[in-house]
Amino acid sequence: MTQNPSYDAPTYDVCAVGNAIVDVLAPCDPAFLEAQGLTPGSMQLVDVLGGVFTHDIRAAGVAFDTPVLPGAATGACMINVTPDGQRTMCTFLGAANQLEAADIDATVIGASAIVYLEGYLFDPAPARAAFEAAAAAAHAAGRKVAITLSDTFVVARWRAELLAFIAGSADIVLANEGELAALFETEDFDAAAAQLAAMVDVAAVTRGEAGSVVLRGDERVVIAAVPVGKVIDTTGAGDQYAAGFLLGLARGLSLEESGKLGSLAAAEVIAHWGPRPMTSLEALAKDAGLTLR
Amino acid sequence: MTQNPSYDAPTYDVCAVGNAIVDVLAPCDPAFLEAQGLTPGSMQLVDVLGGVFTHDIRAAGVAFDTPVLPGAATGACMINVTPDGQRTMCTFLGAANQLEAADIDATVIGASAIVYLEGYLFDPAPARAAFEAAAAAAHAAGRKVAITLSDTFVVARWRAELLAFIAGSADIVLANEGELAALFETEDFDAAAAQLAAMVDVAAVTRGEAGSVVLRGDERVVIAAVPVGKVIDTTGAGDQYAAGFLLGLARGLSLEESGKLGSLAAAEVIAHWGPRPMTSLEALAKDAGLTLR
Repeated sequence: MTQNPSYDAPTYDVCAVGNAIVDVLAPCDPAFLEAQGLTPGSMQLVDVLGGVFTHDIRAAGVAFDTPVLPGAATGACMINVTPDGQRTMCTFLGAANQLEAADIDATVIGASAIVYLEGYLFDPAPARAAFEAAAAAAHAAGRKVAITLSDTFVVARWRAELLAFIAGSADIVLANEGELAALFETEDFDAAAAQLAAMVDVAAVTRGEAGSVVLRGDERVVIAAVPVGKVIDTTGAGDQYAAGFLLGLARGLSLEESGKLGSLAAAEVIAHWGPRPMTSLEALAKDAGLTLR
Repeated sequence: MTQNPSYDAPTYDVCAVGNAIVDVLAPCDPAFLEAQGLTPGSMQLVDVLGGVFTHDIRAAGVAFDTPVLPGAATGACMINVTPDGQRTMCTFLGAANQLEAADIDATVIGASAIVYLEGYLFDPAPARAAFEAAAAAAHAAGRKVAITLSDTFVVARWRAELLAFIAGSADIVLANEGELAALFETEDFDAAAAQLAAMVDVAAVTRGEAGSVVLRGDERVVIAAVPVGKVIDTTGAGDQYAAGFLLGLARGLSLEESGKLGSLAAAEVIAHWGPRPMTSLEALAKDAGLTLR
């Protein structure tokens, strides 16, 4: 090594190799550092949102063993809720962008009465393969495949692919009326619902405060929405309807009972902030005279 | 497909395959949705912090062409700043956790007078390999290798490895006095500084308001700190000292001039919030009578 740096025509002065990281600064009291066990002036490595997600979903009684992808972001969804309770979402997929067929656990799927797939997965191509793999694993084990259409824009982007998947692989479809209209390119609700029902075993279409319609073969049941004092935040309404409805089917309840479970779960979640229920579906069902076997 | 789901002893009711995402909810005015071009009730895919980082670092005049890792998180550092200006950091590495030797661009390093490596990279094993690859690429091109010790805890964790790297591969070392003490396990500043100077071409040790000491062979220059009205936030002080000092060396300035550039840059950044300079080093140097060739 020479005494001086070498200067033969460098393009750059200094090339930095380090961690590209966004700083988030906040003024803080020294007592806060002490309470958090942080050494003043130090740097500590932490993980953040993934832990929050895992804790919350397990606390809700869900078995969640998805492994952490080192270095990958926990996805985040910025949800804007207007005074009418409507939610508008901006989603950063993060690690979810890397979901692929290899992540599908055929053992877990084979041990589940129903596998429930979300239409949002049609956006990233590797996730679509995961979708197909999950459906194949369910059918190989004699289980049922349910899909939700997720969002009207998702349906518009992947209409042909969704129709092909539903026709070839789905047993149960969940949709709201906007998604149904986008799928069959018609505002004629009854015609579209009948078309959907003809493609699968069971279909459930939600219509907001007008309730839902559930169909199986020639059976068609209209389910009333459960009244809510004030709609605070509709985030999670569709997911909660699906949770109740699919639980009903999985436990062998009738089509009507299953639809009622969906309505109960959806009504609970739109009456407060956030997509997680504050009252268990079991308690809601009991109050409504429904028994979960 | 049968009319009913199959129920032979499933362990789970429903297995969900979808995006595991943390919701962040906020009340919002309908006008906000309109201003942002968002369709009420829809879901839109977005990317977030990576774009902010890229914009900011380029706006600071840095060439930044690091490709985006799909699905990986932009790292984030939560920085708590106490009223004395001290900063305490909790770092989520995110995508930085995946830095590996293959990411090192030997062409860029060969086109730079100095490659500057941060000691923080000793924590993830693949980054350490990147570190070695960057040093090898610099030397192969006749360039200089600088390293900062980054943090006393990093030094404590990787003392032997850092000493081996410095002895074998570093031309220039930057450290603060705490890191220097941790490296040589002594509170005797002069002895530790002399030990460090004997291992490399150039060493610079910062001492907060006591300024810095820069050493090259038998040369030892004490650089005064540039006075600051009020220290607001020391975040970035060490990085800015390094920026000024290494720029001086890269441009062929004397050891003393290089140290002064470091002091000027550090003083500027601790007088305001955040790690990015608000006044260019060129302007600071000009005011101080230093010319950047």
